[in-house]
Amino acid sequence: MKQYIETNKERFLGELFSLLRIPSVSSLEQHKPDMKRCADRLVELLMEAGADEAAVYPTTGHPVVFGQKLVDPSLPTVLVYGHYDVQPVDPLELWHSDPFEPEIRDGAIYARGANDDKGQLFMHIKAFEFMMRQGTLKHNVKFILEGEEEIGSPSLAAWAKENKERLAADIILVSDTTMISESVPSINCGMRGLSYVEVKVTGPNKDLHSGHYGGAVANPINVLCDMISSLIDKDGHITVKGFYDDVVELSAEDRAKLSRAPFDLEEYKEFLDIKEVKGEAGYTSLERTGIRPCLDVNGIWGGYTGEGAKTVLPSVAHAKISMRLVPNQDSETITRLFEEHFKAIAPDYVKVEVTPHHGGNGFLIPISSPAYKAAEKAMTEVYGIEPVPSRGGGSIPILADLQRILEIDPLLLGFGLERDTIHSPNESYLLKQLFAGMEAIALFYRYY
Amino acid sequence: MKQYIETNKERFLGELFSLLRIPSVSSLEQHKPDMKRCADRLVELLMEAGADEAAVYPTTGHPVVFGQKLVDPSLPTVLVYGHYDVQPVDPLELWHSDPFEPEIRDGAIYARGANDDKGQLFMHIKAFEFMMRQGTLKHNVKFILEGEEEIGSPSLAAWAKENKERLAADIILVSDTTMISESVPSINCGMRGLSYVEVKVTGPNKDLHSGHYGGAVANPINVLCDMISSLIDKDGHITVKGFYDDVVELSAEDRAKLSRAPFDLEEYKEFLDIKEVKGEAGYTSLERTGIRPCLDVNGIWGGYTGEGAKTVLPSVAHAKISMRLVPNQDSETITRLFEEHFKAIAPDYVKVEVTPHHGGNGFLIPISSPAYKAAEKAMTEVYGIEPVPSRGGGSIPILADLQRILEIDPLLLGFGLERDTIHSPNESYLLKQLFAGMEAIALFYRYY
Repeated sequence: MKQYIETNKERFLGELFSLLRIPSVSSLEQHKPDMKRCADRLVELLMEAGADEAAVYPTTGHPVVFGQKLVDPSLPTVLVYGHYDVQPVDPLELWHSDPFEPEIRDGAIYARGANDDKGQLFMHIKAFEFMMRQGTLKHNVKFILEGEEEIGSPSLAAWAKENKERLAADIILVSDTTMISESVPSINCGMRGLSYVEVKVTGPNKDLHSGHYGGAVANPINVLCDMISSLIDKDGHITVKGFYDDVVELSAEDRAKLSRAPFDLEEYKEFLDIKEVKGEAGYTSLERTGIRPCLDVNGIWGGYTGEGAKTVLPSVAHAKISMRLVPNQDSETITRLFEEHFKAIAPDYVKVEVTPHHGGNGFLIPISSPAYKAAEKAMTEVYGIEPVPSRGGGSIPILADLQRILEIDPLLLGFGLERDTIHSPNESYLLKQLFAGMEAIALFYRYY
Repeated sequence: MKQYIETNKERFLGELFSLLRIPSVSSLEQHKPDMKRCADRLVELLMEAGADEAAVYPTTGHPVVFGQKLVDPSLPTVLVYGHYDVQPVDPLELWHSDPFEPEIRDGAIYARGANDDKGQLFMHIKAFEFMMRQGTLKHNVKFILEGEEEIGSPSLAAWAKENKERLAADIILVSDTTMISESVPSINCGMRGLSYVEVKVTGPNKDLHSGHYGGAVANPINVLCDMISSLIDKDGHITVKGFYDDVVELSAEDRAKLSRAPFDLEEYKEFLDIKEVKGEAGYTSLERTGIRPCLDVNGIWGGYTGEGAKTVLPSVAHAKISMRLVPNQDSETITRLFEEHFKAIAPDYVKVEVTPHHGGNGFLIPISSPAYKAAEKAMTEVYGIEPVPSRGGGSIPILADLQRILEIDPLLLGFGLERDTIHSPNESYLLKQLFAGMEAIALFYRYY
């Protein structure tokens, strides 16, 4: 594969850039036509790579792309999952180059989606193309590429249910996560789930002059701050009633195994430019993101936010709040518990609305499976070091759903790095990770 | 004056509308040319009303308009203060008509500035015009109309210092406040001061993926909420160290006098559509806005605030926070105390910046003065009932400055009503208050 990459590098980059130039932001209505364009482009790339068939399938939301190459029904089948939608790009002013005009700087591609997940799904198409051109493909390969991962995959589970037969496979192969570091390859064997809600706190029925009413009427922003502040206690525990009921405590042995992953707290703090970390008492930083749930305000707004000063006592205040869940916590249950709790703690002087956004459950995958072993061997060969099994803090809720619906385990072979700052300005993907990923994927097929 | 109003009503409204159509929003850079247009229009109106001279004077910010009619140096001089700048209009979607295209509905003018303060300052120009046309003016009259009241009058104090002679007068007459209700006229004998700051809380040096970091790194929005929540304790006391040091406690007698003002808590709650009021323990609602300081968040923002969901752990969170002060509290001292306190309570895992916006001191005016007595008589004649002395919760910081610089007491003869919702969408001003105000002002001159 190394030689094939060397020969085709320029073409590969041109093709990837053609995907990155399409602003497929799934959460913004205005980009609906771009979603379709991006899906069409993927169909072209799959067909050019050697698929028997590839097409865009409508859903109730953004379309899915499905393509496949059936070699022999007796051979094992790999179902590649990826997503072609991307996060919004704001704050735009912090980007050093146009998020939708990819640029290579210092050996990395800078663009929205460079890593998450256009860059990573592209590796699979090229590894597949390589095997097709070499005549070495000894698996059936299916691709399911969705356009709604960043908004919680509202349509794919239903589509998968209807197309269960078509999606039948032995393993779901996914590259949408990170490795521990450039020199420490890792394979994700678990992800956190997600519950995401939007809250609205209404005080008076109109914006008021803060001089005429200030001090006499509850200010919904202050109340929202009080309520949010009360959601986490001083030990970092979430106070939502029943929140920890289904959280499985890991054994000392399991915790010891996970703690083998290298982690340098000083480097971590320096990378983020913070003096101190903060989290749940009694757990390490890696445990806090790997095996423990958490609650974060992802957005807050209310009152006057323009330049200068406006003395308003606003009518409403809003926040987007998400909770990361560990396996065994049920996303819908947690969303319900949150809603009940948030309404219960709302004081009499405000009204509260809670609107659930997307969510999903976490999952764990067995590291003794043949697929994990094959991936381990492939990674060892590419990086010259045995990969560490790790637990991801993020969520790919749809994978838990696909696992349940299709009864196939997912394997998370991610090549992203912390430095890629996905979801943030200046998302990037190192060229050497892009190419190492292609190599490792091709090797995975050899050993699986 | 009644007859004069009847005859000239249409012209009056046309002239007022010509002022209201100019979007003189002082806090937004883009409206700079509108500020100048509005000032020019005021000069025209003053000259047409009969001023000897009127002109636009540059300052370091938006210009001031000064005009005067000197009748006889031995006669008392009235200095009319008003402001021609207005608040921003957002949220624009809540306006039922264009904020800068005045409309009359149900006996009220709807437009930004209809009351605050274009409508109210216009009454003074027309009362002056009436006396000029009738030949009844027995005072020297000066007008000082500024364009920066809504942003804290950063330039007028300096201008007043340089023009102290020119502004010499016996009383500063101001209509920029409200009456208790349509049927309960009142004269404001005190206003609160203001300290207004903007705070910025920075956590990690970039936006992070909330899955990869959530639970392990302090989220600046959560931290900001904690910090804001801690600023007011459960009894409604502000926790900023030293905040109450200069607050004068009113005597039981004074409190009894103020409590004569009619106030219906149930009506108040119904008007605002709230189940409960909230404020400092041990004080009534009127006291909470009249004689007690308070702290309000006027705006808050951070993270993702667009449609849908984005799982970001943001780098920064912001808030605009203002404190209303009672007489004797010094605005600059309070701003300094706030800054010290806010930095002192900032946890190690964030960085905090505090930027002061405008501020100003509160003041009290003697109700035994000849000017107060004249106003009382005028209001009684127009409304058929003796006005109640009241304490305003709002702030006109520049008045405290002018009082100090020019050594002249201000008299606050306001005709606004709660229903006018100044600073909010659908600001309005009842025509009958506009005309009653003109009458009362003309009568004031008769009795002063």
